[in-house]
Amino acid sequence: MTNRTYRIVLDCPDQVGIVTRVGEIIASNGGWISEASHHSDVESKWFFSRLEVQADSLLIGPAELEQKFAQLKQELNLNLRIEDTDQPKRVVLMASKGSHCMSDLLDRWKSGDLHCEIPCVISNHEDMRGLVEWYGIPFHHVVIDKDDKTPGFAKVEELVDEYQADCVVLARYMQILPQALCEKLRHKVINIHHSFLPSFIGARPYHQASRRGVKLIGATCHYVTEQLDEGPIIDQDVVRVSHSDKVEDLVRLGKDVEKTVLARGLRAHLEDRVLVHGNQTVVFN
Amino acid sequence: MTNRTYRIVLDCPDQVGIVTRVGEIIASNGGWISEASHHSDVESKWFFSRLEVQADSLLIGPAELEQKFAQLKQELNLNLRIEDTDQPKRVVLMASKGSHCMSDLLDRWKSGDLHCEIPCVISNHEDMRGLVEWYGIPFHHVVIDKDDKTPGFAKVEELVDEYQADCVVLARYMQILPQALCEKLRHKVINIHHSFLPSFIGARPYHQASRRGVKLIGATCHYVTEQLDEGPIIDQDVVRVSHSDKVEDLVRLGKDVEKTVLARGLRAHLEDRVLVHGNQTVVFN
Amino acid sequence: MTNRTYRIVLDCPDQVGIVTRVGEIIASNGGWISEASHHSDVESKWFFSRLEVQADSLLIGPAELEQKFAQLKQELNLNLRIEDTDQPKRVVLMASKGSHCMSDLLDRWKSGDLHCEIPCVISNHEDMRGLVEWYGIPFHHVVIDKDDKTPGFAKVEELVDEYQADCVVLARYMQILPQALCEKLRHKVINIHHSFLPSFIGARPYHQASRRGVKLIGATCHYVTEQLDEGPIIDQDVVRVSHSDKVEDLVRLGKDVEKTVLARGLRAHLEDRVLVHGNQTVVFN
Amino acid sequence: MTNRTYRIVLDCPDQVGIVTRVGEIIASNGGWISEASHHSDVESKWFFSRLEVQADSLLIGPAELEQKFAQLKQELNLNLRIEDTDQPKRVVLMASKGSHCMSDLLDRWKSGDLHCEIPCVISNHEDMRGLVEWYGIPFHHVVIDKDDKTPGFAKVEELVDEYQADCVVLARYMQILPQALCEKLRHKVINIHHSFLPSFIGARPYHQASRRGVKLIGATCHYVTEQLDEGPIIDQDVVRVSHSDKVEDLVRLGKDVEKTVLARGLRAHLEDRVLVHGNQTVVFN
Repeated sequence: MTNRTYRIVLDCPDQVGIVTRVGEIIASNGGWISEASHHSDVESKWFFSRLEVQADSLLIGPAELEQKFAQLKQELNLNLRIEDTDQPKRVVLMASKGSHCMSDLLDRWKSGDLHCEIPCVISNHEDMRGLVEWYGIPFHHVVIDKDDKTPGFAKVEELVDEYQADCVVLARYMQILPQALCEKLRHKVINIHHSFLPSFIGARPYHQASRRGVKLIGATCHYVTEQLDEGPIIDQDVVRVSHSDKVEDLVRLGKDVEKTVLARGLRAHLEDRVLVHGNQTVVFN
Repeated sequence: MTNRTYRIVLDCPDQVGIVTRVGEIIASNGGWISEASHHSDVESKWFFSRLEVQADSLLIGPAELEQKFAQLKQELNLNLRIEDTDQPKRVVLMASKGSHCMSDLLDRWKSGDLHCEIPCVISNHEDMRGLVEWYGIPFHHVVIDKDDKTPGFAKVEELVDEYQADCVVLARYMQILPQALCEKLRHKVINIHHSFLPSFIGARPYHQASRRGVKLIGATCHYVTEQLDEGPIIDQDVVRVSHSDKVEDLVRLGKDVEKTVLARGLRAHLEDRVLVHGNQTVVFN
Repeated sequence: MTNRTYRIVLDCPDQVGIVTRVGEIIASNGGWISEASHHSDVESKWFFSRLEVQADSLLIGPAELEQKFAQLKQELNLNLRIEDTDQPKRVVLMASKGSHCMSDLLDRWKSGDLHCEIPCVISNHEDMRGLVEWYGIPFHHVVIDKDDKTPGFAKVEELVDEYQADCVVLARYMQILPQALCEKLRHKVINIHHSFLPSFIGARPYHQASRRGVKLIGATCHYVTEQLDEGPIIDQDVVRVSHSDKVEDLVRLGKDVEKTVLARGLRAHLEDRVLVHGNQTVVFN
Repeated sequence: MTNRTYRIVLDCPDQVGIVTRVGEIIASNGGWISEASHHSDVESKWFFSRLEVQADSLLIGPAELEQKFAQLKQELNLNLRIEDTDQPKRVVLMASKGSHCMSDLLDRWKSGDLHCEIPCVISNHEDMRGLVEWYGIPFHHVVIDKDDKTPGFAKVEELVDEYQADCVVLARYMQILPQALCEKLRHKVINIHHSFLPSFIGARPYHQASRRGVKLIGATCHYVTEQLDEGPIIDQDVVRVSHSDKVEDLVRLGKDVEKTVLARGLRAHLEDRVLVHGNQTVVFN
C-alpha cells in the first residue's frame, strides 16, 4: 500500500443530504475521494458510509480533519472515525493446536497481503512456537487451567493491553473468552467458527454436520460477543461434501474454508470496511 | 436417452466379495456394465451400489434378471431393485402460487433434460393452470381448506393413486402433507426448502436469514418425512448476499437456488442415484 | 418496485470534488439519495458514478433535473443520463430453438422480478410461438436465409425500430447480427455466450471444452460488438464438470449457467448498473 | 491414514466383464474392496478403474497380487499398477519467490493432510530457505542462468534422481522445464498455472485478465508436458472479481485459488485418483 489514505467511516440516522454535507467538508479542504460507499438501511432507517481520501490531497492531518466534522457529528448524531493507513492496526493472534489458520495468516502477512502489525501470538499450547518465532513474532504460551480459567485469561488480557492490540483474532483458539473480555473488546475480537452459522452452533460442528447428512459444509467469521457463536457475521463460505466424506474429511475440507473466510473477514476489518449495527454488519466492497 | 439400460440399485450389510458376486451374475448373463458406483459406509458398516447394464447386452429381461439375484438377496440380506430406463418414472408436480420451480421443471421436461413422465400437476391455486395446460399436462385445482384439510388431501391422495405416481415433487407447495401420506409415499416425495438446512427450519426462512445477517442463503432438496424439514437431504446450494439485499432480494435470489437445486435433486432421483439409509443419502455421481 | 426513483448515471475524467458537486445539485433540489456508488479507475483516470434519488423527495422532474446538470456536464466533460424507474426499458428478446433462456426470462418477467416491458419476441424458428403467446407477447418469426441474410436482418431492424426497443437480448439466438446493426445498437444488445470467455470463442464451445478436458464450464453475458464474442463482459459464471460428463452433459449443465448469467446481466443492465468504458464494464452492486 | 490399503489402478480398451474379472482375482485372494470407481469413455471406448483393497484382508502382498493379474493384463491389454499406502510417494517441491503455495503445502504436509514424503525443496531463489528448513526439509538453491539454463536444469535433474522423486510439484516455479525433463517425468510433474486454462496461456495472465475485463479469474493444476500450459488438466477453480480490482488485487485473489487448486490436484495425484488418457484426465472422487 504505497498510497497513504484516510478512511472516514461513519453511521447515523438516515436523512436527506448526508453524503453532500460530508463531501463538502472533505472538498473544502481539498480532499480527493478515491473510493466511496454508502448504504441506507430501509428498515432501521440508518445510514452507513465509508470514504477513502488521498492523504496528500488534504492540507490538514487526520486529527484536524476530524475536528472539521465536530459540528456535523453533533447535528447528525454521527458515529465517525478516521483511520490513517500509515497507522496499521495491531493484531494479536490467538490459536490452540490447529495450525492451518495461523500458518495461512502469517504467510499473508509476510507477503504484504495483510496490512497490519502482528505484535505477538498467544496460545494455550506450545506447538506453534517454532513457526511463529521463525516469522520473528513473539510467542506467548498462556495455559488456561480447566479448573480455574481466571488466571490464564487475566494473563491474556494483560498481554493484549501490553501489546496495545487494536484487534484480536481467534485463529482456531479452542477456548471461550470470558464475558468481561468480550465486552471490553467489543467488535475487536474476530473468531472463525467451523460451521455455516446459524447451523451447528457449539461443539463439534463437523460431527453434527455429518450426522445430519448435509451436502455443503461451511465456516463463519464473526465478531465475538457474550453469546457464543451469535455475534455479527462478517463473512461466510461453504464447500461441497458428499456421502463418501467421513468426519475427518469434513474436518480437512473445512480447514480450507476456515482459513480463507478468516483471512477475508480480517482483511475487511483491517481495511475498515465492516460497520456493525445491532447484530448485523455492513461490509463494503 | 437413446440407450436402454437397466439400473441395479442395492444396499446391504457390508462384507467381502459383494461387488464380485453381483458382477458375476451380471457377467454370466452377458451384461455389459457401462457405469458402476460403490460406497462402503464405515460407521454403519453398510454397502451401497448402483450399476448400469446395457439392456441389449443381456439375453434376459429385467424381471428375469431380478430372479437371478433371488438367492444372493437372501444370502446377503440385500435390498435390490432393477429400474428400466424404458419405464420412465411418473412424476406428479405440486405447487402453490410461486411459478419459478414449476416453469423451470416444465421447460426441462419439454426439452428432454428430465427423463420422466408428468401425468398431472396439482395445485391449491388456479394461477398456473394456463401455463401447465400449454405444456399439455392436466391441471387439478385442489383447495386445501384451512379449517379442515382432510378432504383436500384425500383428493390429493386419490389423484396420486389414480395417476400412478412413482414420485411427487413439491415445487414450492406451501402446505404440509399429512403424516399418513408422508408414510405411504416414503422416499417418494421430494421437497425444496428455501433455506440451507438445518438453518432456518420452518416458516419464513428468508426473514430469519435477514434478521441473522447471514452472508449466504441457500436451498435444500430433501425427501419429505413426518418431521418437517428433517428428512434426508438430496442436494443443497447457496448464493452470496450482502447487507444491501432486503428480504425481497433474498426471496428473489433464493429462487434461483431453489429451482436449480430442486431440478438437480429430482434428476438424481429419476436416475436412481439416490439411496437412503436412515436419515442420510448416498448420491452417486 | 413501488418506489419511484431517478437513477443518475455518469462518468467523466477523474478530478477532485466530483462527488460533492454532483451531490450539491441533488441536495439543493431536496433530493434524498437512497443509493450511491462511485468508482475511480486508477489506470485510465476515469470516474464512474451511479446514484438513486427518491423521486418524491425532488420538487422537479427528471428532465428539469438534467437541466440543472447542464453547466457541470460541460465543466467536467460529463457523460450523464437520468433514468426514471417509472419508464421501464423496452426489451426485445431474440432466440432460435433452445428454450431455456427464453422460458426463464419470461417467468422472471411475469413474476415481476425483471422490471421491464417485453414488446415482442423475434425468432428465426417457429418453435417458441406458443409459449411466448401464452405470456401475451407478440411473436415474430423472421427467417434468416443462409444464402442472403440481408432481407431477414432488415426485417429484424424494422421490428426493433417499430417496437421502440431500448435493448435487445439475444437469448440463445444462433445468428450473428450484421455489423451495421451492432453499431446502431451499441451497448444495447446483450448476448449470452456459452463459454467462459475468452476461452472457446466461436462455434461449438462445449465440444471445444470437452476436447480440452476442462473441469469447469461457463457462460458469459456481454454487449455485442462488431467483433464476435469480444464485447464488454457484464457477467460470467461457471459450473463444475467431470470426466464422466459427455458433450451432451456439458450442454445440459451449461444451460443452467447460461440462463442464470443472462438474467443477472440483463437485470444489472435494466437497473442501469452497467457502465461501459472501452472494452470493460463497471458493474455497480 | 491408519488403514493400509492397496490401490489397484487400471485402464484398457473397454469390453464386457472387466469389472467382474478384476473382482474375481481380488475376491479369490480374500480381498475386501473398500472403494471402487469405474468409468467407460464412450467416445474412445476406453475403460478406467480404481479399487482400494484392505491390505490385511489379503493373504498376499502387493507384488504377489500384481502377479495374479499377469494373465488378465495380457488378455485385456491392461495398464495396471498397484500402489501401497504404506509406501507414500516422494514429492520434490520446486518454487521461486512467491511463498503462498509452498507455505500452504508445507502446513498441510505437517498436519498430516497430505500423505507423502517431501525429501527436498528446490528453488532458483534463496527466499524460502528459512521456512523450508524450519519444517526440517533440505533446501537446495539451484540458480537457473538465463543465458545458459542447461547446467541449472542438469542440477535439478540430478537432485530429482538423487532424492528418488516419484513426483515433482511446481509450486509457482517461474521457469519452464526443458523438454527432455518433461518427457522423462511424464505425468509426474504437476504445475499450477495462474489462469483458468485455456484462457490466458503464457506470461502475465492476470494482466491479460484485467485487460479483457473478465468477472472471474482462475487457476489450473495440470501435468506438465512439452507444450507450455497444454498438459492434461487435473483441477481448476475460479474466484469472482470486479471492476474495482486492480491487477495487484487479481494477483492477491488469485493466490487463494492457486494454492487451493494445487493442493487439491496434488492430493488427487497422491491418492492415485488421476488417470491420464491422451490429453485428458479421469479424476475419481
